[in-house]
Amino acid sequence: MVEKTFNQTIAKYKLLKRKDSLLLGVSGGPDSICMLQLFCQLREQLRLNLVCVHFNHKLRAEADQEEEFVRDICKQNNIKFSSQAKKVTDFFTGDSLEQTARNLRFDFFLSCSRRLKIKKIALAHNHDDVAETVLMRMVRGTALKGLRGILPQTKMAGIKVIRPLIDVPKSEILAWLKDNEFEYAVDKSNLEDKFFRNKVRLKLLPLLESWNPRIRDSLVNLARTAAMDYEFIYAESKKCLAQIKKQKGRNYLKLDLKSLQSLDLGMRLNVLRLSLEELKGNTRRLELRHLEEVEDLLAGRPDGSIVDLPGWEVKKEEPWLIIKFLLTD
Amino acid sequence: MVEKTFNQTIAKYKLLKRKDSLLLGVSGGPDSICMLQLFCQLREQLRLNLVCVHFNHKLRAEADQEEEFVRDICKQNNIKFSSQAKKVTDFFTGDSLEQTARNLRFDFFLSCSRRLKIKKIALAHNHDDVAETVLMRMVRGTALKGLRGILPQTKMAGIKVIRPLIDVPKSEILAWLKDNEFEYAVDKSNLEDKFFRNKVRLKLLPLLESWNPRIRDSLVNLARTAAMDYEFIYAESKKCLAQIKKQKGRNYLKLDLKSLQSLDLGMRLNVLRLSLEELKGNTRRLELRHLEEVEDLLAGRPDGSIVDLPGWEVKKEEPWLIIKFLLTD
Repeated sequence: MVEKTFNQTIAKYKLLKRKDSLLLGVSGGPDSICMLQLFCQLREQLRLNLVCVHFNHKLRAEADQEEEFVRDICKQNNIKFSSQAKKVTDFFTGDSLEQTARNLRFDFFLSCSRRLKIKKIALAHNHDDVAETVLMRMVRGTALKGLRGILPQTKMAGIKVIRPLIDVPKSEILAWLKDNEFEYAVDKSNLEDKFFRNKVRLKLLPLLESWNPRIRDSLVNLARTAAMDYEFIYAESKKCLAQIKKQKGRNYLKLDLKSLQSLDLGMRLNVLRLSLEELKGNTRRLELRHLEEVEDLLAGRPDGSIVDLPGWEVKKEEPWLIIKFLLTD
Repeated sequence: MVEKTFNQTIAKYKLLKRKDSLLLGVSGGPDSICMLQLFCQLREQLRLNLVCVHFNHKLRAEADQEEEFVRDICKQNNIKFSSQAKKVTDFFTGDSLEQTARNLRFDFFLSCSRRLKIKKIALAHNHDDVAETVLMRMVRGTALKGLRGILPQTKMAGIKVIRPLIDVPKSEILAWLKDNEFEYAVDKSNLEDKFFRNKVRLKLLPLLESWNPRIRDSLVNLARTAAMDYEFIYAESKKCLAQIKKQKGRNYLKLDLKSLQSLDLGMRLNVLRLSLEELKGNTRRLELRHLEEVEDLLAGRPDGSIVDLPGWEVKKEEPWLIIKFLLTD
């Protein structure tokens, strides 16, 4: 069953080609060991070039042991292995510890990608992770974009990230490892993000499951339709933005006021969101009420009016709407 | 605060005009009594013609008392009052009791609307109801459409339904009633839907609130962006469907295969969903996997192939995709 879903996901989302070169992000936990073993089985058939990459966060006493454990499995299976150890706490900058860890880990993956000229990495997120992520986002506050949860494939800094276990439930992964007598490391970390994830996993999901035994499927379906809906809106907004007269500078974007005002409300808000995103690279601190303030500026406020948003300044200056990205942010 | 939000909501969504005629759905509970009293205050200024409508479900011992209670308030305030009493359990057809109650109640409102020639009704849903509804939908399984929660205005069978308390939290309603010394009935019913709603209110929301004190706002914001995103997708799909060559019968719709196949995946799925909805009036039993089956039919299966969906049959028959609504459903 695990193999079948793994193969179906690869086929459905066209995650692999024959003779692909691939980094495998392997922590040593059950999910990543399952993924590593499945790729070992698939290697011959698709003639894959596999490189296992492991980042040692130095956060727990067992961290070095786990690095050795993954290195050994790779040796046994004749897979190239590359690792880096960095004490995450030394790099902690006040953001969440989990975010710091994720950034360092990804920097390492990126450097491997450059050094080995491999533009694709497989990560071992599973079906439960998607359901949990949707719930976590919902609890913290989200919109359509966040509801997509974890996608089967994404792009980060030019690297294609694929997630072939995304449709496999955690329970099936654990059963499969047991049936095949594969060992794995048990992650006891409680990074901030993991801490919240654990609460969602151990308290929230069981409560919801008592009301809907298929709650994980429901959440994953929500994520999948949200992903399609988001893609659709994103593509249409992009087409629309391309047709609007504009002037672009390093940290500003001028959009033709009249064109913006002629759009339907929904399209206008999406085009504005996209403009802010393209200027800054993300819309992390952008909230609905910010967009509504810009909408208010467009609809009624006099020429010369300014709206201050976290990281942006938006000004009405006939015939332009001027969006400025504040570099000090 | 309650008055301010009530007035802002009315202005923002343009819920009222001067001299409007309006039915007020009043159960006698805190929300509807608050709404009734607010409309009494507004009546002079906007010269509103108000008719209070009350449906007596005959489900609890206090039901008749509550009807009298609402009738009395209307008499005191010189507001026309119309009521109907029907024992909901006598009409229960195996659907949920709450659904039966809702149908009977709405039939009564509809008959009042026709008799009095009033095309607008105000209902007293509040901010907490929206958050709870989003959670209930999510637990039971939903997509973008369901995430919209409860809208400030909708249309049902030609009647405009407005919800001027939609942005007022329950706590503010209760405090306002206390401050103004307005009495109200305490609803002790436990209809099936209310039962689930109560679990969401008493168990789920407090848990989520312990992680995010502003969880209700987050959920309501999600509902509001979902509503905008849904409107956007709906409008674009409608434009697209209008441009596709088609033949329409009483219970079938033929769509030009080539036009469908030329669309982007997201647009194609939305156009298919819309076609099914327009044919049947709703998409209640339609799931993502059903649309994916139709997508599969379009993409690869041979001419003459059929996909059976609950209530629909979809057939590929060059040059058409034929969607048939099965009347026996």
